[in-house]
Amino acid sequence: MAGTPTPLQRFRAFVAYDGTDFLGFQIQASGRTVQGVLEKGLTKVTKNSTRLLAAGRTDTGVHATGQVIAFNLAWRHGIKKLQRALNANLPGDVVIVKIEPTKPDFHPRFDALNRQYQYIVLNQPVQDVIRRRHVAHIFKPLDVDRMNEASLCLLGTHDFASFGQPPQGSNTVRTVTEAVWYKNDCELKFYITANAFLYRMVRAIVATLIEVGLHKLRIEEVKNILQAKDRTQVKWLASASGLYLVNITYTH
Amino acid sequence: MAGTPTPLQRFRAFVAYDGTDFLGFQIQASGRTVQGVLEKGLTKVTKNSTRLLAAGRTDTGVHATGQVIAFNLAWRHGIKKLQRALNANLPGDVVIVKIEPTKPDFHPRFDALNRQYQYIVLNQPVQDVIRRRHVAHIFKPLDVDRMNEASLCLLGTHDFASFGQPPQGSNTVRTVTEAVWYKNDCELKFYITANAFLYRMVRAIVATLIEVGLHKLRIEEVKNILQAKDRTQVKWLASASGLYLVNITYTH
Repeated sequence: MAGTPTPLQRFRAFVAYDGTDFLGFQIQASGRTVQGVLEKGLTKVTKNSTRLLAAGRTDTGVHATGQVIAFNLAWRHGIKKLQRALNANLPGDVVIVKIEPTKPDFHPRFDALNRQYQYIVLNQPVQDVIRRRHVAHIFKPLDVDRMNEASLCLLGTHDFASFGQPPQGSNTVRTVTEAVWYKNDCELKFYITANAFLYRMVRAIVATLIEVGLHKLRIEEVKNILQAKDRTQVKWLASASGLYLVNITYTH
Repeated sequence: MAGTPTPLQRFRAFVAYDGTDFLGFQIQASGRTVQGVLEKGLTKVTKNSTRLLAAGRTDTGVHATGQVIAFNLAWRHGIKKLQRALNANLPGDVVIVKIEPTKPDFHPRFDALNRQYQYIVLNQPVQDVIRRRHVAHIFKPLDVDRMNEASLCLLGTHDFASFGQPPQGSNTVRTVTEAVWYKNDCELKFYITANAFLYRMVRAIVATLIEVGLHKLRIEEVKNILQAKDRTQVKWLASASGLYLVNITYTH
């Protein structure tokens, strides 16, 4: 069979990155982006210019442990070898966690059933120097029970126009199926899952819930903000350093 | 009492730092050091040139959560205010965790009973992009039971000449009172406590124990290396990124 060209195959890859030194995921005319770095690595390995599709376009400074991408590749070796070859051609702040063959029409964004984000807050009087790039610091004590009570009113299908702009089109209705804070010592972790998110929606929600936790905002006021469907209602934005895209669910 | 000069007082401070961007602790003619940054902050707050003493001179890239320093200061306000003022004059990768008045002759190095270091290894096939600056990665599986068995032969008073040079003088005898690995999922944490350490001793020991964990070195060979009292016996050096000075014990 020597000389037979290897057919193009579609792959799905799970990608982790430290968002600190990236101008976000999506490729741009100038500036270092995750997509740019990944496409450069893919092109090096395949020796052909290779483009990719991604599930979510994370913003500048936002991290990911479970970003999903897809691309077509002619590869005649094993899948483990492909992962090693790609990782050898990526910088230290991006890594392919897993790679697998997928169906030819798989689309990481359109086929996603939901996305899960995590937000980490360190609630302690002194900064953690080791984790400073990967958390948000809140020095004054937060009332986590109040934050969880306010989180409940986000669950379900609502018009989230107060919390973000749509990445395209004008539909600001989203369905949130998880919104909960876990406290472990000084570390607070917020998990939020929705069918899709508006631009900056998680950071606007987290910042609002932190106001509640600081007793600067009443729970009724969160309800009012949501019902107002008015982006000018939320003046706060939580730091990108605490935010992680952690999981995307597919049927297949 | 207006006009009475505030008397000089000695303070002890517990300091945490991310060693990544420092050429070690000790001040040098050129290059960014933790001591340099701390003395600059102290001098800014006191408006007088202030020098400090420290418990341990950590090497380039080594982190600390429990470094101890001492300095003299004329300060007429509360201790919390002093901590805030200092932290406001330090960069993001150094923080004063705690500060307290101490006796006039307190010396962080000479008065120390022992020092505890921690070493973090992530033992997984794929790099952790978020923690890459603050751990060591070992991709091949480590046998932690073997590493703990080999650690036992380090306990007690030995001549550790094979594992490091003395920072001053020629005495290479040290007393190790703790040497143990804990495993939690993919994360291995090594704790080692001694009355004092030789230069690069922890990293030479960790690298040797990793060889044991990879089944490249037998436990008897570790004993032989220790008994040889010969620095050329240990060719390995574990990465600085995994090492933390975590605790120093004093009688007072």
